[in-house]
Order: sequence, then structure tokens, then C-alpha cells
Amino acid sequence: MTDGDAPTAATDEGGGVFAFGADAPLRLESGGRIDGLEIAYKTYGRLNADRSNAILVCHALTGDQYVASNHPVTGRRGWGSYLVGRGRPIDPGKHFVICSNVVGGCMGSTGPSSINPATGAPWGLAFPVITLADMVRAQAMLVSALGIERLFAVIGGSMGGMQVLQWAADYPERLFAAVCIAAAPRHSAQNIAFHEVGRQAIMADPDWSGGAYGAGAARPEKGLAVARMAAHITYLSEAALQRKFGRELQRDGLSWGFDADFQVESYLRHQGASFVDRFDANSYLYITRALDYFDLAAAHGGTLADAFRAARDVRFCVFSFTSDWLYPTVESRAIVRALNAVGARASFVEIDSDKGHDAFLLDEPVFHDALDGFLRAAAAAQAPS
Amino acid sequence: MTDGDAPTAATDEGGGVFAFGADAPLRLESGGRIDGLEIAYKTYGRLNADRSNAILVCHALTGDQYVASNHPVTGRRGWGSYLVGRGRPIDPGKHFVICSNVVGGCMGSTGPSSINPATGAPWGLAFPVITLADMVRAQAMLVSALGIERLFAVIGGSMGGMQVLQWAADYPERLFAAVCIAAAPRHSAQNIAFHEVGRQAIMADPDWSGGAYGAGAARPEKGLAVARMAAHITYLSEAALQRKFGRELQRDGLSWGFDADFQVESYLRHQGASFVDRFDANSYLYITRALDYFDLAAAHGGTLADAFRAARDVRFCVFSFTSDWLYPTVESRAIVRALNAVGARASFVEIDSDKGHDAFLLDEPVFHDALDGFLRAAAAAQAPS
Repeated sequence: MTDGDAPTAATDEGGGVFAFGADAPLRLESGGRIDGLEIAYKTYGRLNADRSNAILVCHALTGDQYVASNHPVTGRRGWGSYLVGRGRPIDPGKHFVICSNVVGGCMGSTGPSSINPATGAPWGLAFPVITLADMVRAQAMLVSALGIERLFAVIGGSMGGMQVLQWAADYPERLFAAVCIAAAPRHSAQNIAFHEVGRQAIMADPDWSGGAYGAGAARPEKGLAVARMAAHITYLSEAALQRKFGRELQRDGLSWGFDADFQVESYLRHQGASFVDRFDANSYLYITRALDYFDLAAAHGGTLADAFRAARDVRFCVFSFTSDWLYPTVESRAIVRALNAVGARASFVEIDSDKGHDAFLLDEPVFHDALDGFLRAAAAAQAPS
Repeated sequence: MTDGDAPTAATDEGGGVFAFGADAPLRLESGGRIDGLEIAYKTYGRLNADRSNAILVCHALTGDQYVASNHPVTGRRGWGSYLVGRGRPIDPGKHFVICSNVVGGCMGSTGPSSINPATGAPWGLAFPVITLADMVRAQAMLVSALGIERLFAVIGGSMGGMQVLQWAADYPERLFAAVCIAAAPRHSAQNIAFHEVGRQAIMADPDWSGGAYGAGAARPEKGLAVARMAAHITYLSEAALQRKFGRELQRDGLSWGFDADFQVESYLRHQGASFVDRFDANSYLYITRALDYFDLAAAHGGTLADAFRAARDVRFCVFSFTSDWLYPTVESRAIVRALNAVGARASFVEIDSDKGHDAFLLDEPVFHDALDGFLRAAAAAQAPS
């Protein structure tokens, strides 16, 4: 997904893989635990003397820690390049930016493709089912390990936005501000349905082998590509698909066959084919499962406001996009209503865009200006001059 | 899809398979032709003496000729049981109802699972790509073969509604009335995208074997099931999914695994698994392709109204459903605008329903009353007393 001019590159990059010791297992919502947790992360900028300028950026389903760096597999610029960078709303010249790969992921953090020490082979389906609360708990451990008690802000879009809500519910005292973008307080039946199609596509692929594919063996690339194609449609609006592709053909005239006649077919096939180069099928199963399990109100007696009761001193900003039908504005409004109900400081901005859910990753100046304004105001409130 | 009380069964059933001779090939839009065409059809009611009471019902993508009969494979009542039957809007007590399986289908009409006389094996991908115009041309041949020059009405929903539009464009002199339900004048980029996901899911299944699976060999059931699951989501509204399933679980508590935890997952899996019992994967490829190729305006110099110029004496009724996001109301409005532009008699009814695209198959009394009223008025106009 690229459009507009390339933003300014980030600077002062750091990061690596943080290996937690045997004395620091990740305790899981399922009751299980992960020993020897490793969390891969990137940082941009420098932590200031009073450790008050850290921003944690939470990535989406298929995102990773390379928010503002070229991706090590694809070589493409980071998924959050419009958000993070010099002169961008999250500016490494001012902020110490942390972005970590979620537990369950496949870019260096412990996940189903990691080696199970008990067997010497990848975990596969023996990996425990994880939740967004588990992802956030691992992030909190990382933030502590980096010597940061309290974040200036936690920011994320889509699944990242849900992690922001989970942070507010579980670690409100560790946040000054929170920015939830294009997200929802729980996965809807339609959200679950689309994910289930993707999981079934992966599990239908004989190369999936019950999740036990490994190094050297064929990987379930066809199934994962179909899963990506189905999901990708939900990231774009009908209007954006019509504007970008309409019924434009790949060549002059129809093929009268099953080649990609229409540009939108070719585009989708490319989305599927390129995705399998950078993503693990089992991670896709685990992370979609974590999303489907997400229901912040249910974990608080059925009342969403109760999730935010201890977060009333956190400064929230909630963003939605008019053409996002994956996590539509009505979901963001539910979040804002719950925040208002507990007297939290909640700004709400609905951005007019026809780009669908993916707008949060794209060149949306009004969104970026509003985010910049919110962060500047929050920074001023945090440290009054 | 069932809800409400079972409608009254149809009576006076007839039908069979009409085999066209070598002198009557089906000439195809691609330039090819099908020799020895067979069209499977059902009839309900009796043709009157002046042959003026025939209604052709056109089925949707995965429908068939068993509009008001129990399905021979599933045993379930016909897909159009709310529309066709004694006391229903299309009443075999008054009308002679014809419904034929489309060419390319798998319920008895010539399609990719038919035997290719040149090889003695199923056609598979050697079957020619067909279009909605080809389907309609085969229907027109059948209607002529049944001794009917002019239909009282042609009626269909979804792909059936598109066939109605094609009838109006190609055989306006053979229609007194036309009812287009929950359809569109062309497939949008999003429509094509969802179909392409389904096709890729089928073609990713190794049992598809390049389309050459046959009797005795394994069929691409997993791929076809995934295709059906993805498509099925588009047939329901987000609201309907939320109302029917929400986040309700199959059992007490989560499985912490990849079983169907949520009822919506179980429902979708069932939709996929049961579909493969009654449908052929290659037919799914061919019919989705026909739909994606459909663009009535493009075939008339880019102006939709020009498709209807010779149909200005046909009485049209166009129906849409408020929560249909597959073929939303805006598409029906485009049809009505084009009809108005040529001075055709066009009624337009938007039905308020939260059931999504599938509403056209379900218990929607306001829709059925409006359809009944339109057909009664048309019958009165056809034969003034």
C-alpha cells in the first residue's frame, strides 16, 4: 500500500530481540505460560533524561516492528512511515518510539514458528493460543525491561488500536495518553466470519500439514494467499476498489478463460502471492484467533465503560474513517461513549476518506494533522512550561 | 436459508431435460458454440390456451431449476418457495412457470461436468467460457421449444435479475413484463474481487487437478467450501450476522484452539460443507466468470439506457433491499434511471430489510405483496376484461 510522496526516513534506529529469562515467563490468559519469551522490537529516537517521551506503537494483524524501517524481507518502507519519522506526528526527534512484534508473530518474537525447546522443532499448533491481553502483557514487560515506567503514549491502528484499549484497561497507570485508530472494542460476527474463511483456506491447504510444516518442507502458500486475498477486500472500500480498478482489464479484450482478466484480479493475486513471502501461516491462525477472542466489555462484566474505569486520567484520542467497513465508525463511537461514561478525556475524530480501513496506513493529511495536534497538546499538558 | 412458515407446495409439476438437435447449436458470445445443448427445466401450472400466462424464473449463481420443488440432492424445499406456489405471487394456479438450469450449471443442463463427446470425459476446462447473454439465449431457445412466443413475465433475483435485464436487452419483443430483484447492471470491482477469491480457493485445491477431476476421483471439496464461505458472507448483512450469531459460543467457554468456538464459525463451516454436496466446482468457476463478465452498458456502447431502448413497452419492476451490500440499492437506481431515460414503464421498490442480499429468498411479506401487486396489475393490463 503506497501512495503520495515517500515520507522522510526515520533516524536514530535501535532495537533487537529481548530475551526474557526463565524467571520471567509470559503468563497467558488461557492459564498457560511461555517460558523463555523473546520479543523483537525496533526503536527510533532517544529516551529523554526523565524517561517521559516514550511512545509505544502497536502493529496490526500482519504488521511488524518495522514501523518506520525498510522491511527486511520485502525491502519496502515501513507500514507506519506516514505516522513515524522526522516531521511526522510521531517524531523520533522528540519521541522515543518503540514498536515490537506481537507474541505469536513471525518477525522475531516468540510464536508458532519458534523452536519448541521440548522438541527442537517449530511449535506449530502446540503453541498456546494467545490473546490481545497476552500481547499487551508482553509489551509491558518489554517497556519495563527498557527502563520505562510510564509511556507518554500508546498508539495503534486496527488490531494495534485494540491493543491500545487493552493497555488502557490493564495498565492505565502506565499511560499518559492513548490513541486508538480504526479499531473496535470487540470483534463482530462479520469480523469473525471473514477470519474463519481465512483460517479454513489455510487449513484446507495440504501443505499446512496440521500446522507441522517446517524448514525445508513446503509451506501452505496457496491457502495463506487465499486468506490474504479475502482479508484484503475488507481493508478497502467498495469506492476505493471502483476508483482504483473499476472494470479495467489487464489486456485489450477478455481472455475467455480464467487468467486474471480484470486489474482487480491481478492486484488481489499479487497481494496474496507477495504476502506469503513475509508471513507465516500459523502466525496468521494464531493472531486472527486472538482478534476473534477480543471482547473488552465481556472481560469486564459486559460493560465496556468498566474496562476504562481506572483509565479516566489517560488522555484518549479515537480516530475512525468514514469508509471503513471492517471496523466502522459506530465501533469507535461505542469506545468514545464508554470513555465518556467514566469521565475520561476522550477526543474523537472521524476522518472523511473513501480509502476504507487501510486509510490509517495511507497518505491522509487531515488524519495526520489531527494526530499531530493531539500529541502536541498532550506533550504540553504532560510537561507544562 | 429457511425462516417463517413453509409455504404451500407447488402443484402441476412438469419438466425434464430438453435436448436440442445438431441443427440447433447454442452460439456463444465468445464466438464458439455448444452442439447438442441440453437444458434441464421444471414447470409448474398449465399453459393457457392463448399461451399468454408463462413466467420464466431465472435462478441465481448457485440456484437451479427446482425453484418450488424439493431439491433432489438435499431434500430441502426449493430456493424460491416464497415466490412460487399456490397463493404466492407467482402462482401455478394462474401462471405457467418455467425455471431452467443455466448453461454452465451442474443440475442437468450442459456444463463443464457434462461429457465432452469428443473425449468421452467431462469437459472440465475445455468447456467454453459462457456469459449471461449465452444463458439467456439458451433460455429463449427453451421457451420457443415449449411453444411460447412471448412470456408474460421474466423474473429473477441476483444473477437471475441480471438475466432479466439481458432478456430485456436481447428479446424485448418476447416480454410483456420483467422483474429484476436485488441485481446490478454490471459486476463491480468488489464483486469481481470476491469471486476471484472463490476461484483461487478452488484452483488452490490439489484435488481440482486443473479442472480434470472426474467420476471416482476426489473432487476439490475443500476449495469449493472455502469459496462458498467467502461468498456467503456477502449474502448476509453485518446486522443480520450480528442478530443471528453475535459472539455467541458453540459451547460454554472458549476452546483455546481452532475448533469452531463461535456459532458464526460453525454456521459458515456448515454452509461450505453442505454446498459441496450439491454443486460442482468447475460450474462455480464458469458461472462466477459469467457474472464478472456481465456489463450490460459496455455491450451497448457504454450507455446503459441504450440496452433498454427496444424494451420501452415492457413493464418493469425493480426491487432492492436496504441492507444488500452485494448489489446495493444504488445499482438498482442506475437500472431504473436507464429505464426512465428511454421512457420505459419502470416501478422501483426498495424493501426495508436487515437480512442483506439473501432477503430476496426469505420471508419478506412487503416484498411479496409488492411483487404480487405488480404481477396482478400487469396481468390486468395484458388482458383487459
